[in-house]
Amino acid sequence: MDDFKEFCGIIGITNHDEAAEMAYLSLYSMQHRGQEGAGIISSDGRQVYRHVGLGLINEVFEKAETIRGLKGRMAIGHTRYSTTGSNSEANVQPICVNSKDGPLALAHNGNLVNSKRLRDKLQQEGAIFQTTTDSEIIVHLICRSQAPRFLDRIQEALRQLRGAFSLLIMTPEMLIAARDPHAIRPLALGKAVDSLVIASETCAMDLIGAEYIRDVEPGELIVIDKEGMKSESIGQAPCRKHCIFEFIYFSRPDSRIFGEYVDKTRRKLGKQLAQEHPADADIVISVPDSSNTAALGFARRMDLKFELGLIRNHYIGRTFIQPHQEIRDFNVKVKFNPVGGVLQDRRVVVVEDSIVRGTTLRLLTSMLRRAGAREVHIRVSSPPVRFPCYYGMDFPTRDELIANTKTVQEIQAFLNVDSLGYLSLDGLLEAAPGDPCHYCTACFNGDYPVPVDDFSKTQHES
Amino acid sequence: MDDFKEFCGIIGITNHDEAAEMAYLSLYSMQHRGQEGAGIISSDGRQVYRHVGLGLINEVFEKAETIRGLKGRMAIGHTRYSTTGSNSEANVQPICVNSKDGPLALAHNGNLVNSKRLRDKLQQEGAIFQTTTDSEIIVHLICRSQAPRFLDRIQEALRQLRGAFSLLIMTPEMLIAARDPHAIRPLALGKAVDSLVIASETCAMDLIGAEYIRDVEPGELIVIDKEGMKSESIGQAPCRKHCIFEFIYFSRPDSRIFGEYVDKTRRKLGKQLAQEHPADADIVISVPDSSNTAALGFARRMDLKFELGLIRNHYIGRTFIQPHQEIRDFNVKVKFNPVGGVLQDRRVVVVEDSIVRGTTLRLLTSMLRRAGAREVHIRVSSPPVRFPCYYGMDFPTRDELIANTKTVQEIQAFLNVDSLGYLSLDGLLEAAPGDPCHYCTACFNGDYPVPVDDFSKTQHES
Amino acid sequence: MDDFKEFCGIIGITNHDEAAEMAYLSLYSMQHRGQEGAGIISSDGRQVYRHVGLGLINEVFEKAETIRGLKGRMAIGHTRYSTTGSNSEANVQPICVNSKDGPLALAHNGNLVNSKRLRDKLQQEGAIFQTTTDSEIIVHLICRSQAPRFLDRIQEALRQLRGAFSLLIMTPEMLIAARDPHAIRPLALGKAVDSLVIASETCAMDLIGAEYIRDVEPGELIVIDKEGMKSESIGQAPCRKHCIFEFIYFSRPDSRIFGEYVDKTRRKLGKQLAQEHPADADIVISVPDSSNTAALGFARRMDLKFELGLIRNHYIGRTFIQPHQEIRDFNVKVKFNPVGGVLQDRRVVVVEDSIVRGTTLRLLTSMLRRAGAREVHIRVSSPPVRFPCYYGMDFPTRDELIANTKTVQEIQAFLNVDSLGYLSLDGLLEAAPGDPCHYCTACFNGDYPVPVDDFSKTQHES
Amino acid sequence: MDDFKEFCGIIGITNHDEAAEMAYLSLYSMQHRGQEGAGIISSDGRQVYRHVGLGLINEVFEKAETIRGLKGRMAIGHTRYSTTGSNSEANVQPICVNSKDGPLALAHNGNLVNSKRLRDKLQQEGAIFQTTTDSEIIVHLICRSQAPRFLDRIQEALRQLRGAFSLLIMTPEMLIAARDPHAIRPLALGKAVDSLVIASETCAMDLIGAEYIRDVEPGELIVIDKEGMKSESIGQAPCRKHCIFEFIYFSRPDSRIFGEYVDKTRRKLGKQLAQEHPADADIVISVPDSSNTAALGFARRMDLKFELGLIRNHYIGRTFIQPHQEIRDFNVKVKFNPVGGVLQDRRVVVVEDSIVRGTTLRLLTSMLRRAGAREVHIRVSSPPVRFPCYYGMDFPTRDELIANTKTVQEIQAFLNVDSLGYLSLDGLLEAAPGDPCHYCTACFNGDYPVPVDDFSKTQHES
Repeated sequence: MDDFKEFCGIIGITNHDEAAEMAYLSLYSMQHRGQEGAGIISSDGRQVYRHVGLGLINEVFEKAETIRGLKGRMAIGHTRYSTTGSNSEANVQPICVNSKDGPLALAHNGNLVNSKRLRDKLQQEGAIFQTTTDSEIIVHLICRSQAPRFLDRIQEALRQLRGAFSLLIMTPEMLIAARDPHAIRPLALGKAVDSLVIASETCAMDLIGAEYIRDVEPGELIVIDKEGMKSESIGQAPCRKHCIFEFIYFSRPDSRIFGEYVDKTRRKLGKQLAQEHPADADIVISVPDSSNTAALGFARRMDLKFELGLIRNHYIGRTFIQPHQEIRDFNVKVKFNPVGGVLQDRRVVVVEDSIVRGTTLRLLTSMLRRAGAREVHIRVSSPPVRFPCYYGMDFPTRDELIANTKTVQEIQAFLNVDSLGYLSLDGLLEAAPGDPCHYCTACFNGDYPVPVDDFSKTQHES
Repeated sequence: MDDFKEFCGIIGITNHDEAAEMAYLSLYSMQHRGQEGAGIISSDGRQVYRHVGLGLINEVFEKAETIRGLKGRMAIGHTRYSTTGSNSEANVQPICVNSKDGPLALAHNGNLVNSKRLRDKLQQEGAIFQTTTDSEIIVHLICRSQAPRFLDRIQEALRQLRGAFSLLIMTPEMLIAARDPHAIRPLALGKAVDSLVIASETCAMDLIGAEYIRDVEPGELIVIDKEGMKSESIGQAPCRKHCIFEFIYFSRPDSRIFGEYVDKTRRKLGKQLAQEHPADADIVISVPDSSNTAALGFARRMDLKFELGLIRNHYIGRTFIQPHQEIRDFNVKVKFNPVGGVLQDRRVVVVEDSIVRGTTLRLLTSMLRRAGAREVHIRVSSPPVRFPCYYGMDFPTRDELIANTKTVQEIQAFLNVDSLGYLSLDGLLEAAPGDPCHYCTACFNGDYPVPVDDFSKTQHES
Repeated sequence: MDDFKEFCGIIGITNHDEAAEMAYLSLYSMQHRGQEGAGIISSDGRQVYRHVGLGLINEVFEKAETIRGLKGRMAIGHTRYSTTGSNSEANVQPICVNSKDGPLALAHNGNLVNSKRLRDKLQQEGAIFQTTTDSEIIVHLICRSQAPRFLDRIQEALRQLRGAFSLLIMTPEMLIAARDPHAIRPLALGKAVDSLVIASETCAMDLIGAEYIRDVEPGELIVIDKEGMKSESIGQAPCRKHCIFEFIYFSRPDSRIFGEYVDKTRRKLGKQLAQEHPADADIVISVPDSSNTAALGFARRMDLKFELGLIRNHYIGRTFIQPHQEIRDFNVKVKFNPVGGVLQDRRVVVVEDSIVRGTTLRLLTSMLRRAGAREVHIRVSSPPVRFPCYYGMDFPTRDELIANTKTVQEIQAFLNVDSLGYLSLDGLLEAAPGDPCHYCTACFNGDYPVPVDDFSKTQHES
Repeated sequence: MDDFKEFCGIIGITNHDEAAEMAYLSLYSMQHRGQEGAGIISSDGRQVYRHVGLGLINEVFEKAETIRGLKGRMAIGHTRYSTTGSNSEANVQPICVNSKDGPLALAHNGNLVNSKRLRDKLQQEGAIFQTTTDSEIIVHLICRSQAPRFLDRIQEALRQLRGAFSLLIMTPEMLIAARDPHAIRPLALGKAVDSLVIASETCAMDLIGAEYIRDVEPGELIVIDKEGMKSESIGQAPCRKHCIFEFIYFSRPDSRIFGEYVDKTRRKLGKQLAQEHPADADIVISVPDSSNTAALGFARRMDLKFELGLIRNHYIGRTFIQPHQEIRDFNVKVKFNPVGGVLQDRRVVVVEDSIVRGTTLRLLTSMLRRAGAREVHIRVSSPPVRFPCYYGMDFPTRDELIANTKTVQEIQAFLNVDSLGYLSLDGLLEAAPGDPCHYCTACFNGDYPVPVDDFSKTQHES
């Protein structure tokens, strides 16, 4: 469901004739990870060039001149979701500062849980902040380190961070990729002829013709410069805790995440869901496009017909004028229209990837009924979301999470559906590839792999 | 396939507090029928208000003030595909002129085949043209008629037209809908509380909460004013010849067209195709989203797995910066990415709605193979397109239609696929609802229901 | 005073490598004649290229590509003042239509007095109007003429016009300039190497390096094509009635108008004014920049010090945000600031070019007093404006003309000044070059050289 | 002459219902001090609101909503000239940061001469820089001070600065104005009802109805908060060295600068110049508008006619399309057009405020000759500019200063004029109000009141 905001996507590319163009294309293929702003910083070996802006990647880079002005054979890029506000343009990444080490550029995906503490400490020491991003904190830490070598300073800075970070750091001569020891957010390494590519999702590599090699490892620091690539460690013991929601919802089905095809896992979620919560129904439909794959898996296992019961309008822009007059189910109707001929008089299973607030799904359900569905059965390809995420997923506050305040039966009543089934946590972990211990499942069971300080808690629960 | 440009969509609404807002929403739901420009003209009973512009409906109506400025309880709207060029803004509809009858607004979907002749004649008589649209011709004919009553003048004008026209004409007091005697393009009539709505597709009614009543009949003239609605005739014998391509490709699956659900017919096309050209394969995929429904039908009838083998990026805007360097399959990759896990080592049936030039499909096929597909079988849910359309479908010239210059076997070789099967014309007509005689099939067999003059032929075949 | 809107400026150029660029520069130098919209149409001998828009010439032609796209060696341009409104973009000139003679472009400066009658007649005959400009009427008349030769058709059309017209008409092969028999608005002919240039003011020629040859004569039709230039007559007896306000206010002082330097005449107005209404004062100031030259003449003849007592802020754009709170004299202060050191304790003569409403001048006077002026004496370098202009000068309605409702003494009281003196009509005509009979002085004495129909009167006096 | 870039203008206002609106109007009246960017930060007592952008003040604040969004009763504003470049938007002031003291906003007019040294030192200590402005350095110094009280920290920071600074610092509760001990740049204090206003020039006060009280004193620190206003010292001995160029060129003639009317001083410069370098000529003209006042003074003392020999086009925007073809004197013609009737056959004195490169003046002279001037005599109301300015005036590098490489006779030959006279330095100081020791005259004689470090020298002389 689209009730929560998506994450950021980052891309880095080295040794390419059209580094900025490739970053642009990569960001475009990761547009689903953030639609509010984007930016690219390139380097020609001596200086760096920056262009950032609010909007879709196509809007930020509307003119070819803009991208041609980002010279050099190395670039990093960022696409972000963001809060609005007068200052929001300042927050668009990648950030770029001048320091004693010269220009320093940085793009960050994830969320730190000790940012308040770090920021306070830095301010007490006299640091000034021009954005509200974690990125600026990281840059401050790097520049204030007294360690002799540049890489030492980076390691010292990163060791102070708690939470999720998939990072790209660029100087005029060097690209550095780093990932927190829990490897919460994805970060993959690929290769295209002579170029190395580092991206949040592998779909970004597909478009520019690069091939996936491996993931950046938990706690790994990859340094790419003229000498080639070398791998170092941040200096903290790795302990994988991948965000399992990447498989459930965030990543594109054609991407490989944490080394695995998203599509396969997502189909397994649907199958597992069918096993746990079969439904006596005529057809299975998805909420396009995010639950398409899980719905297919569900239909397959149940041996039910998969149908296109909802048509999605993809032309929604950032602004949309709303009529004053009330139109029934307007907020879902703008996105989805039911297909009468498919739904009429049918018992319908709707496979949804997750339920956060439940309000949109309730409207959708009512719309399906009005379009003729005789029964509506909701099947959710993830467990109930009960706890906030502090590592980068922008859930509503705890009180707004419907599963936090209502039982499954109450939710079923609220949605006014004939049945409701959530995938179990065990089922989810069984469907997910590899060792179940390697996933963060905090939003389902409250087991936070990285302790969260009180301030961060307050922020999310208020 | 997206090789040809789409049509226009039109909307008219009467007796509504937020007529312009409703027109805006309706156009938004018909955005697939034209993305190059849009406009709305409203009337408050005394004067008319107009706003048109280039771009998507959301771009043309970016500010709420713009739409609030379109006062009154009656409005017509238009969304169009368009040729580019310095003058193109002038061509955005609805057109509005001042005449002896006061302000006259007009929105047109379709294509006249005698426009050159009419235009020449009008110019000889001293008429001047500020656009290159058919709409301006129609307005000239209305204003030059010497018939005493306004409606007589409209009838006299419309009787001179040859070709396809679904028309909305608005004066400050009156909304008129008209459709050519062959009813080539769709036009539906609906109702929302006290309002009457006339729209190209019924999905435009769904969004604003109106209900479909019936189609505007072939050769019918509907007049809506304070007295209510009355039906007249243009004065020519009706002879249905609906554009069958609306079922194959243009219309949204959730719309009713020519009185029938598009979705149902489109699924039948897939089933019929499976019957005519079964395939020995592992999975069936569509080219999202246009052939989704036909592919589902095909898979169902063949009892094969329907899979999501291609992910479509919906964020493409009007401008897209291309890299200088060659990227393999770039032009399809920007839109579609193959899902490796689905295709790897599989024998794949790709259901496509139609083949026009074949060049895009060839790139797509090569991309599927590179993603691991062992065999690629193309199944097309329409017959070979061999003849140009003169009634509003913007095919390439005859020489560019691949089925016009190559046999099916040659096309199969060109596409480099393991098999290729087109739906037969008989099969198409069987799947389409109602009397087979009621469809225009000229693009497949050259049987043009309305004679086309030489000039129009030259235009399309040069 | 800036209380009335300015006129349009037009430019035509033939046989030049950068015709559109020259038109652009010329319009820029005539920007004072209209700031609301501008456009250029060029011809490459076969087809025409058009770009028009709202705003200053620099805003309409913001990108070099735009102007480079206006190909060919011939161009016409227009800069206009305009009313606002949703439809205003449609009214931006030059207009371009397709007719039986092919493309026809037209730019018009002036105002017809029989436009209502012509428009009604044309509409009765079936003509449609997409703008509210006189230009569209003229184009209709040309295209509807049944005369055999193109030039005959133009002559026939122009003979039906009543009022002021300085016209440029362009076809792909030909540029035609025409002026009404009274030659009310200016139109000059110049030469630059191989090019012929026709412009409203000669300052447009100076910038592009052309030299003034002579004026287009009253009732003259100049035709420029490959064969060269030939002069014909519209076919009506010439009778000069130049708008004397061009000398008083409209034209730039560095232009030649009606064959004479504006600067010289304007200085004479000041001298004559001094002779008629001397003032016992310390200093003379102008209202910059429009009355600078007259003020200099006044000061010279009186042998008083000319001072810069008001500083004008030239950065005013089209939009200006006004504070809610009342600021004294705000509306004049935004434009003018008094120079304390100059005014303090002085008896000040303010030379103004004309008084229309008087409200702005009243604020200005009050501001001067507050800045320390001991006495304020107003001297106006034109007679009282008592009658509306129907030939293109956009005065307020008759009731708003202060001299129409108040005596000079009452105006003096209204302005709250120590003395007030207007130039006499005789004095004005003596200062103006040439035969006094050759000027239109209708706004001062109501002697309209071209009879005005009732409708036009209503329009201006309501 | 316009050969050098202008300065910045700053404005601060407290205790006003429409603080941001007043800042906007004030900046508009100081638009001549910088046209490249502008910004306003307001405070409502708890938080601050910021809007900045590139362009004229009217462009940056195009929508009323923007300025209405800057809430609160206190605001500071800045208008700046700037170098271009991809990063320039980041440099637009006022700057705003978050620090241990909360939000801190700062607007700066002037130029530090030890900025390189300060920046290096700060970076060594780990500071990061996101702009290249002096403002960011000052903010860093404030935030890094370990002094206990906020005001102590500001004083400690300011005592480290060398060079010119007229500063406004704002926190949510407090507005602070400060001026370097030499008071190089202007800064005035005024009052409007209950509000205190601090502005670079008094013309900014006139528009919003405030009255000048006194200047901010050299080395003074003014603190305005709820308790009222109190004056402190930065802690350095004051030693006035006002930039004398403010009188010659920068400031508006209607402003009071350093406590004195600019207009009066500027007229005296003209008179003194006439005394030193009389001319045997017919008329005196200015280069509008910057040398108008000095030219009037010159003409008065010489008892020669002051004429308007050049008309300036004020419509120049930021972009201007240049023709490919060479047009004689194009670069001056775009701005100025000679008035033929005034110049024809006359011996002309042109009073210019200063000569920097001399190239524009040379073109102007040639244009005047072509317009008929028999003789051209240049009189300059300032001494030869021979040395760079390090305190904020953006001269070209030393080699480009024509007076640095040529004698007066050689300059006369270069300009191709009949005579050339510069005002002497003694004459300048005599005309300027007050003690001659209180002015910085470094650009004329190289006496730099604040020692300049080598780096800054390199920057200006390379």
